[in-house]
Amino acid sequence: VPLARISIPSSLSNDKTVALADAVHLGLVRTCGVPMDDRFQLLTRYASDMMLLNPTYPNVNRSSEASVVEIMFLRGRTDAQKEALYQYIVDRAVEAEFRPDDILIALVENTHIDWSLGGGKSFSKQMEALPRSS
Amino acid sequence: VPLARISIPSSLSNDKTVALADAVHLGLVRTCGVPMDDRFQLLTRYASDMMLLNPTYPNVNRSSEASVVEIMFLRGRTDAQKEALYQYIVDRAVEAEFRPDDILIALVENTHIDWSLGGGKSFSKQMEALPRSS
Amino acid sequence: VPLARISIPSSLSNDKTVALADAVHLGLVRTCGVPMDDRFQLLTRYASDMMLLNPTYPNVNRSSEASVVEIMFLRGRTDAQKEALYQYIVDRAVEAEFRPDDILIALVENTHIDWSLGGGKSFSKQMEALPRSS
Repeated sequence: VPLARISIPSSLSNDKTVALADAVHLGLVRTCGVPMDDRFQLLTRYASDMMLLNPTYPNVNRSSEASVVEIMFLRGRTDAQKEALYQYIVDRAVEAEFRPDDILIALVENTHIDWSLGGGKSFSKQMEALPRSS
Repeated sequence: VPLARISIPSSLSNDKTVALADAVHLGLVRTCGVPMDDRFQLLTRYASDMMLLNPTYPNVNRSSEASVVEIMFLRGRTDAQKEALYQYIVDRAVEAEFRPDDILIALVENTHIDWSLGGGKSFSKQMEALPRSS
Repeated sequence: VPLARISIPSSLSNDKTVALADAVHLGLVRTCGVPMDDRFQLLTRYASDMMLLNPTYPNVNRSSEASVVEIMFLRGRTDAQKEALYQYIVDRAVEAEFRPDDILIALVENTHIDWSLGGGKSFSKQMEALPRSS
């Protein structure tokens, strides 16, 4: 249960928008053990005067395509997993012609009891009711 | 001091939108001890290609009306209160003709010192200055 | 690395919008040790029926210009710094003709490893690679 908020400049192309969203999800799958189907993303476009991102802090070089990825997910990922997540997302974004410094990522953590994915049950209870994955 | 962000599909009717916002607030009041007047909600509509919610994870059945409720509130609610909150919100939403699996909820916690509700004072100090409620 | 989300009524003037964003950033610089260049802000306008803010809780007086400032930043600021931050932001906002009760602020905390500011590196690693500031 990650929930990703992806904030992009309104000028970003549809292809790049889709590629970034895919990169974020695949990164979670490949580095953080998130199931492929566990995808929840909210994307928002911002006019340039509503998205104020310093162009160089700290020692980077952002363009007008700089985008912000916020991920809320379950506590418990290691520092190494987070490092791998950042690198994976940026590597995939670069394949879609993003500049590597145009991806800013921030993580916030909570726990199973802080999620309900449907039916008014907590994710803790939903997990108990699931068939064991093979 | 909960702050709720409610993300809805742009196709959702006004009646359902209002009903969901009311359900979220009443749930906090009835299950988590939030005062009735302590209501702070931000609602955002999303085009379907900007709101990517897997239709079945984990073993649920979401429709095009699937909505996301994020609540930031004070640490200290028990697991039982959170379970009751989820069930209350979904029960009220179902009364407004939502499908039970169309409500996804995520919680994030902070503390009194992390809020200022006006006048530049922390909520900790604002509480001290309030008349005791009867 | 604060990331500020500033939610304003769609009726707010451009001048006040800019003034509030500046107030938030300067507050972080002056009270929380944030570098001047470390500015990352996302601003969103809300129609009045999508921004539900109780007008008086708790014992304040909000107008139609009431705005919400959410700041995600690094854990470690003291209670005194947070109190100073709230007062600073509101004092600057009042200079721009906001009413003091129209600024609601909420903080959420994470750590260095929860940020990547570019290039796919964690902020922890980016900091190591930076020249020492004088």
